[in-house]
Amino acid sequence: MRIVLINPNTTAAMTDEMADAGRRAVSPGTEVVGITAAHGVASIDGYHDEVLGAHAVVSAIEELHGEFDAAVICCFGDPGLEAARELADGPVVGIAEASFLAAMPLGRRFSVLTTLDRGVPPIEDVIRRHGVEERCASVRATGLTVIEADNDPDVAAEALEREGRKAITEDGADVLVLGCGAMVEVREYVQRTLGVPVVEGVPAATAMAEGLVRCGLRTSKVRGYKRPEPNVYS
Amino acid sequence: MRIVLINPNTTAAMTDEMADAGRRAVSPGTEVVGITAAHGVASIDGYHDEVLGAHAVVSAIEELHGEFDAAVICCFGDPGLEAARELADGPVVGIAEASFLAAMPLGRRFSVLTTLDRGVPPIEDVIRRHGVEERCASVRATGLTVIEADNDPDVAAEALEREGRKAITEDGADVLVLGCGAMVEVREYVQRTLGVPVVEGVPAATAMAEGLVRCGLRTSKVRGYKRPEPNVYS
Amino acid sequence: MRIVLINPNTTAAMTDEMADAGRRAVSPGTEVVGITAAHGVASIDGYHDEVLGAHAVVSAIEELHGEFDAAVICCFGDPGLEAARELADGPVVGIAEASFLAAMPLGRRFSVLTTLDRGVPPIEDVIRRHGVEERCASVRATGLTVIEADNDPDVAAEALEREGRKAITEDGADVLVLGCGAMVEVREYVQRTLGVPVVEGVPAATAMAEGLVRCGLRTSKVRGYKRPEPNVYS
Amino acid sequence: MRIVLINPNTTAAMTDEMADAGRRAVSPGTEVVGITAAHGVASIDGYHDEVLGAHAVVSAIEELHGEFDAAVICCFGDPGLEAARELADGPVVGIAEASFLAAMPLGRRFSVLTTLDRGVPPIEDVIRRHGVEERCASVRATGLTVIEADNDPDVAAEALEREGRKAITEDGADVLVLGCGAMVEVREYVQRTLGVPVVEGVPAATAMAEGLVRCGLRTSKVRGYKRPEPNVYS
Amino acid sequence: MRIVLINPNTTAAMTDEMADAGRRAVSPGTEVVGITAAHGVASIDGYHDEVLGAHAVVSAIEELHGEFDAAVICCFGDPGLEAARELADGPVVGIAEASFLAAMPLGRRFSVLTTLDRGVPPIEDVIRRHGVEERCASVRATGLTVIEADNDPDVAAEALEREGRKAITEDGADVLVLGCGAMVEVREYVQRTLGVPVVEGVPAATAMAEGLVRCGLRTSKVRGYKRPEPNVYS
Amino acid sequence: MRIVLINPNTTAAMTDEMADAGRRAVSPGTEVVGITAAHGVASIDGYHDEVLGAHAVVSAIEELHGEFDAAVICCFGDPGLEAARELADGPVVGIAEASFLAAMPLGRRFSVLTTLDRGVPPIEDVIRRHGVEERCASVRATGLTVIEADNDPDVAAEALEREGRKAITEDGADVLVLGCGAMVEVREYVQRTLGVPVVEGVPAATAMAEGLVRCGLRTSKVRGYKRPEPNVYS
Repeated sequence: MRIVLINPNTTAAMTDEMADAGRRAVSPGTEVVGITAAHGVASIDGYHDEVLGAHAVVSAIEELHGEFDAAVICCFGDPGLEAARELADGPVVGIAEASFLAAMPLGRRFSVLTTLDRGVPPIEDVIRRHGVEERCASVRATGLTVIEADNDPDVAAEALEREGRKAITEDGADVLVLGCGAMVEVREYVQRTLGVPVVEGVPAATAMAEGLVRCGLRTSKVRGYKRPEPNVYS
Repeated sequence: MRIVLINPNTTAAMTDEMADAGRRAVSPGTEVVGITAAHGVASIDGYHDEVLGAHAVVSAIEELHGEFDAAVICCFGDPGLEAARELADGPVVGIAEASFLAAMPLGRRFSVLTTLDRGVPPIEDVIRRHGVEERCASVRATGLTVIEADNDPDVAAEALEREGRKAITEDGADVLVLGCGAMVEVREYVQRTLGVPVVEGVPAATAMAEGLVRCGLRTSKVRGYKRPEPNVYS
Repeated sequence: MRIVLINPNTTAAMTDEMADAGRRAVSPGTEVVGITAAHGVASIDGYHDEVLGAHAVVSAIEELHGEFDAAVICCFGDPGLEAARELADGPVVGIAEASFLAAMPLGRRFSVLTTLDRGVPPIEDVIRRHGVEERCASVRATGLTVIEADNDPDVAAEALEREGRKAITEDGADVLVLGCGAMVEVREYVQRTLGVPVVEGVPAATAMAEGLVRCGLRTSKVRGYKRPEPNVYS
Repeated sequence: MRIVLINPNTTAAMTDEMADAGRRAVSPGTEVVGITAAHGVASIDGYHDEVLGAHAVVSAIEELHGEFDAAVICCFGDPGLEAARELADGPVVGIAEASFLAAMPLGRRFSVLTTLDRGVPPIEDVIRRHGVEERCASVRATGLTVIEADNDPDVAAEALEREGRKAITEDGADVLVLGCGAMVEVREYVQRTLGVPVVEGVPAATAMAEGLVRCGLRTSKVRGYKRPEPNVYS
Repeated sequence: MRIVLINPNTTAAMTDEMADAGRRAVSPGTEVVGITAAHGVASIDGYHDEVLGAHAVVSAIEELHGEFDAAVICCFGDPGLEAARELADGPVVGIAEASFLAAMPLGRRFSVLTTLDRGVPPIEDVIRRHGVEERCASVRATGLTVIEADNDPDVAAEALEREGRKAITEDGADVLVLGCGAMVEVREYVQRTLGVPVVEGVPAATAMAEGLVRCGLRTSKVRGYKRPEPNVYS
Repeated sequence: MRIVLINPNTTAAMTDEMADAGRRAVSPGTEVVGITAAHGVASIDGYHDEVLGAHAVVSAIEELHGEFDAAVICCFGDPGLEAARELADGPVVGIAEASFLAAMPLGRRFSVLTTLDRGVPPIEDVIRRHGVEERCASVRATGLTVIEADNDPDVAAEALEREGRKAITEDGADVLVLGCGAMVEVREYVQRTLGVPVVEGVPAATAMAEGLVRCGLRTSKVRGYKRPEPNVYS
């Protein structure tokens, strides 16, 4: 089985980290291939960047000519997810979507932790886009940028622990979701310290993609996800 | 006052029709300028095309350098709407959004009429994206393509009348919304025949944009619609 | 075009202020006429007063004998709005309704600021009546009466600024709506100070009414808003 | 215990029938008093009539000077219900509200049967006003006027049976609610024929009012239902 | 009329208190009989205990062989409620359900007060199971166990007063519901001190059961609550 | 890795089929063990049977003394799921839950196909219990009993094809979920014939359980799913 992980931003080093994270979540015989956006932005913050990311996702899927069993969109806004499904036959999973679906059987309500306050509304949108708002307790920002979090994992861990604790005691969450790829390395620390499951999108999505393929399931080609109509491009 | 109408597809003839429709809905002193997508697709059907349209919208807004008082996105999926709001200071209105907001004071529940069955899920998505699903009775497809509808307005009018009548008698709608720009010329016929208001997106959005500017209102620059962060493009 | 602004309370001085506010939001050729409730209460606080206001609205609409293109109900509970629609052919817009519809394209979620705590549930009701609860972050009371707010605009501005800031930082709002006519004169101050759009109902509703008429739209006469059946009155 | 049944229309013969229906639902020691609207309309169809009915309810409650333990508003739109609660100390129950609350423990989802199609949207409104839309399967109209239904109970029974059967087989209802006082005498016939509980508002509301008083419960006087503020009436 | 109160836990002393509470809420001619779970747990905290309680409820209903006019399930999670309805012909009411239905006509939004934090999610579930989440302001825990609350009513009263006050001032509640049988004796104290209605489940449910029987209503035997199919038990 | 599949009914032959189905969905190194209910009913239809099934699930989990990495509850009502989570440390997944979560990335809206009409409300309940009603198009019954479906797979396939086609064309579904274990063998036929993904619960849940364990995730032990309190059993 071959699962492609599409990084909608142009930073190849992030793609490698994502592919590593994905590989750890699947069985030995499954191939996980990372693909970096060929154009767009170096990191995705907010709606404008997501449009560029969605465009890059569509290009990447088209260039693959269907040579994959499942695809994962590796950005927490799930940019281009529905478009990728129109183009693909196998399952396509977004990392925000898979995080929510993985969090749901583990607790009653999840909270999403992200970096900057400006990132909260796009995450609220993606929660509602997937129709799971009923199961979400809150979306909280740590106030750190992706770069600050990357540069100092201890500061990131501390910030996540602080906001995660508030999500549990003030918002009623019993599961946490990391709404930002950069926070990966501190997942286990936070999970251990707070005593709740902490879900990270890339492994959750890669494992889910593998499971769907194993069950013989593909993307619906009826109604919304039919292949695109012939069109004039420029 | 200067309102720009951005056509997210590359067909300039459609832009002209849109600008004409917009002009009829504003007061004499207001300038309405149509802008055609510089790249992308000739017409927008489905999620893949909407991603290309969103990309074109972002490019168009950036090239305007803020030289407008309000902007209207002229495609019923409202592609790139949130991204355009990050970039703009004045109000930005989508034609799907404005259609719903105009329909709401005119009746209890609206139905949207569109062309092909595949267009129904994206319209259900945009209804939910704007949070107005409570006010929507149904989304119905006529089964005609945009081209078929364009080529034979009588056939289009008949199809809209038939589905509009079902929306009223079977789904409980008392207002209809045209979910397709090509259907414009038959609006008055359907409104007269079925005796319910029939909302067309471009004039509704242009009038709403003018009204918001008159009230001294602009796009929020707090949280979700803050200007994009500095980034590396490629 | 002739738009009537119906003040559901009996205070003529307020009607004049409303008509002035409405006039500033429409184009030069549009006539805006204020009408004061012929009976009822001097100001409307709570459900009991709204019943009297709704009754006055119905009387006012009946006495107009259809001599208007659109009507606006100028009280934040939108009293008598549905009844007025049964009686009218042109569009009828409530100021609460129009505030919500104007706030929606400007941000992700709006908060309503009102006077007394007792006014919060009726406003929550009108939000839900219009089916826009999904877009509302909160309803907050300043604790000031209408009279206190009127007598000392500085105190009112300060209170609105304080509650508006909480709405933004604690409740996740990025647009504010003034849920009380008396707060009009401080709108620009709050908008400037907090950096978010602040929507005032009367101009928003008057501009919306003008736009709907320009688009050739009228109240639906199918199902819920059909003209009243013949009846015996006493 | 003294329960007042307020008929919001001016037809005294209906008040007598309501009081009889209410008496059959309470224990022997409980006094049930019918009160007819002192002004307004002979029967209530639609929003305009409900405004007049709400006004009459407010007048009736004020004239009672609190000399009752509980009150019931006997019109299926529950006109003036919230206003009556501001004025009263004891519980005030609407017959639509009580019908829904009685239907809920008897099945999974209820359907409301009413007379004319124009009555459907106001009933959808009152369902949503009470926040029980989740439990409602549908609202269906028989197409008969109140007078037609009154004049020929056999025709009414047949129409209710027909629409009730559709509600069960097509809409998924397992409880029916009669959304019209005139249909009372055929309740038992429909219940027996279709084999589902058929709820009638006046007895359901009167029994509920008695139960609330027995439990020592009164209307909340905090926030929304506080007594009205001092005001100037005219 | 004969109403059975089924205590899903095995503590007979609690059954007696419940029967006393139920008797005070019905008219003199109505017989109220308490039945204690024949097997299961001494008190019900959390999902595991509710499964055992549901099992005991089913056994109790089966042993009654239909010799009752209505039944009440006396545990705030309403365990086994739907199963009991399959087995019974008369109405079956849960005390959580009846508390919500009684709270709704008394105010705009209710809050539920319970003992431990772990009890909050099961109560959120039962609110949603009955479809009344729209009317709920919050669920709050006092932090006391049932035993602590029982042993020291003053401490319980103080804790309920403290959390009830927060529910009113911070969460927007205007009615309180006691989500725990042990708190009964302090109901009147809290109601008097906070000035809002405080609903206790057992009397509310018993009064509602009596009212439904008086109205000639029984459990629906169509679709979901049909009698169980023949089966092989072991 | 060791995954236990708990069959809440007492029919061991069904347990074997479930274990086979589960094994086909996981990687070679994963052990899948089927466990049959030690007491209860031979097959589960409706709420009464689900209570017995939930009881059997609790007993089965307790007897396992934690010797498993994840557990799957193999009955479409997910009986005892929350209770099992209180008792378990590893993930516990219900087959209804997993079917919904697997269906969501494959299309816009799923429909569930079940046997008898009486089974529809319990399935609507479990959809709502998991908070995914937004993504569900409909629940449809074929009218066949489990035994009829088992005895004649051709009849079952035909019935599923017929109702599945209606779900797609009339209800707007683009994914189907089999709400009944007996329908397993016809899944591929229906998927091929109708051209939409058809999800079967046991493999979907087993694959999801394996994925969650691979991601290092366990059941939350905070708030709702804490281990049960010490109690007195009888």
